Amino acid sequence: MAVGENLFPEMHVVAGIKLGSCNAGIKQTQRDDILVIEMADGGACAAVFTQNDFCAAPVQLAKSHLSQEPRWLLVNSGNANAGTGKQGLQDAFACCAGLASEVEGLAQQVLPFSTGVIGVPLPVAKILPVLPQAVSNLAEDHWLQAAQAIMTTDTFVKGASIVISIGGEPVTITGISKGAGMIQPNMATMLAFIATDACIEQALLQQCLADAVEHSFNRITVDGDTSTNDACVLLASAAAKAPKIVENSNNYAIFSNALTTVCKQLAELIVRDGEGATKLMRIVVEQAVSTAEAVLVGKTIAHSPLVKTAFFASDANWGRILAAVGRAGMENLDLEQVQIYLGTVCIVENGGRASTYTEQDGQRVMNQAEITVTVRLGRGSATAEVLTCDFSYDYVRINAEYRT
Amino acid sequence: MAVGENLFPEMHVVAGIKLGSCNAGIKQTQRDDILVIEMADGGACAAVFTQNDFCAAPVQLAKSHLSQEPRWLLVNSGNANAGTGKQGLQDAFACCAGLASEVEGLAQQVLPFSTGVIGVPLPVAKILPVLPQAVSNLAEDHWLQAAQAIMTTDTFVKGASIVISIGGEPVTITGISKGAGMIQPNMATMLAFIATDACIEQALLQQCLADAVEHSFNRITVDGDTSTNDACVLLASAAAKAPKIVENSNNYAIFSNALTTVCKQLAELIVRDGEGATKLMRIVVEQAVSTAEAVLVGKTIAHSPLVKTAFFASDANWGRILAAVGRAGMENLDLEQVQIYLGTVCIVENGGRASTYTEQDGQRVMNQAEITVTVRLGRGSATAEVLTCDFSYDYVRINAEYRT
Repeated sequence: MAVGENLFPEMHVVAGIKLGSCNAGIKQTQRDDILVIEMADGGACAAVFTQNDFCAAPVQLAKSHLSQEPRWLLVNSGNANAGTGKQGLQDAFACCAGLASEVEGLAQQVLPFSTGVIGVPLPVAKILPVLPQAVSNLAEDHWLQAAQAIMTTDTFVKGASIVISIGGEPVTITGISKGAGMIQPNMATMLAFIATDACIEQALLQQCLADAVEHSFNRITVDGDTSTNDACVLLASAAAKAPKIVENSNNYAIFSNALTTVCKQLAELIVRDGEGATKLMRIVVEQAVSTAEAVLVGKTIAHSPLVKTAFFASDANWGRILAAVGRAGMENLDLEQVQIYLGTVCIVENGGRASTYTEQDGQRVMNQAEITVTVRLGRGSATAEVLTCDFSYDYVRINAEYRT
Repeated sequence: MAVGENLFPEMHVVAGIKLGSCNAGIKQTQRDDILVIEMADGGACAAVFTQNDFCAAPVQLAKSHLSQEPRWLLVNSGNANAGTGKQGLQDAFACCAGLASEVEGLAQQVLPFSTGVIGVPLPVAKILPVLPQAVSNLAEDHWLQAAQAIMTTDTFVKGASIVISIGGEPVTITGISKGAGMIQPNMATMLAFIATDACIEQALLQQCLADAVEHSFNRITVDGDTSTNDACVLLASAAAKAPKIVENSNNYAIFSNALTTVCKQLAELIVRDGEGATKLMRIVVEQAVSTAEAVLVGKTIAHSPLVKTAFFASDANWGRILAAVGRAGMENLDLEQVQIYLGTVCIVENGGRASTYTEQDGQRVMNQAEITVTVRLGRGSATAEVLTCDFSYDYVRINAEYRT
């Protein structure tokens, strides 16, 4: 089940970026489960990784390789290589070395990524023999095949693509993501790979990606869990004719906005594919003291099982939203100033149910598949939006039956 | 559904404490929904209240009355008087005044408590006329009736009672609680009323209660939500022959231990009655840097929907527990030092699955209705235990269908 129609968009090719996939039989299906992404020489690579202390072996290795001017990404689905100890690190490095020898690069120039079941040794013996096939498949227009190869329990393929103008020349940003929850059942979960032909220094690229992720992937939640394998990578090939993007410039602002848009689209697709999701909820928190406070309130609402089950039932249960705002932990909250809206219907004001509110008005909004909840705190000017989905019988079923 | 057999225990009467209940028809059932507790003159009253900023009208009033040497508690079930604005405060005070005139006390000596649906005006006109009946029913041996009168969606009556020896004389601690989650559907939720005949100053009583609650009610969670109405009250009548309990004494330690035991029993009963619960999970975190850290890790595991659904499915999905530990937010966690046990079975060590672990061993533990998860962090000597229950289809059903 997924919220809305989620068609794979037109994916603009990115000069200097090629993608190749193949099937190593890790998932024991016919679907590709290996993806190689190659960037032409002279580009830059930025990445952000999970904050989970138990980060998986490939994440540990990718972090250490990031400073070695990487040119290749090697992704497998079906096995997360997480909770696998020292053997996991050796296995991940063996795969990097295998790909490096095939493309005549260094193992340190390969960033490894794995997504799938936790705690099962990575089947290196299945992966190494098929790497030549993935390399021979490398092509600029293989974005769809790439998006398919990284899926696990995703119910649809996720992509976003945009072309902007920098100095009068086109610059492309194209990306794919996978995930159906901040963490999937036993899956270690969210991955996003984005590429651009922009020319930009690595340090600035890293800053731009960190900003974009903060406003997109870090503002979604399905169940509040954070995977051991989450990662988002941005490759910039510098193959476009556009001028180099430098700090504090108008071009940087244009590029940064476009990247954030692509990241938001990829992030929203993950929520729409949330496990068991029947509804998409946009929690907009306004008039907060700081962005951090706005995010805190938004996430407290988005994580509440009581709020999520009420939305599943299309029940305009405003008391649960009010209770979530109240326990978010704000200093000196003045209840009289708080307003809460379901869509455009005011449900809470002056510390209680709005005098104009009727159950019929609330029900009309709740019957929709995509619902915006707006909370005005009346104590500042900061705003944040958090996306989440509802909590259904299917969420319990999917997560209870995952390994059976 | 509830975990285990939960028989109402023998409730030792507390000298100087009387309880009286009656039916005001708030819930439109034949069950009593009004409870009055009266303490003899000369006792002390301590209380702790919800941390939710949106605390309900009765909680606001009870907080302000606590310093007025209260002698009466007035509780109604079926209506939380929460999210009711200024009218809610007036309604709560009217009920206090009504009871005060009946018992010839002051309204400020009455602490009001309400539990039930949020956002519906308190039916004062139904409550005031029946107060004389509750007062005429006051008796020392009405603990069972009292426990019944405060139930909402609870599936069984909750009580605990203990007699200790202070200076060679018996001292009784008897209490009741209600609640089936940190917050119930739209219910505003957990209440506990405890009485003792010990002689103890109010300030010390308050400290003793705060300590006991920190180790009991503050260590349980069903869904991570905190109600607008949670409260725990301790009345000390000073009617026992035992010597007065003073600070830093052996008698204080005995009393404090006993009170904590009663609170833990009452708290555990709430988890056993958790909405849709089929399993009780004790999360024991050892070798933490501080108690706060141990509680943080315990609650992160206890709040994880992925962990809770795995327990519902009796699935020894150790990867989810490991991922929850990893995202708890400890500084400088050394993964190699972490050990995780299911019952007595070691499932994680050295950053991955324990070499001795077998699925059969894990399954044997998971098939039990009460399961202890022990996490050894290997970085200190602090310990904490958090209680929670699993996450079932029935949790979603109860919370999705609550108002329909």
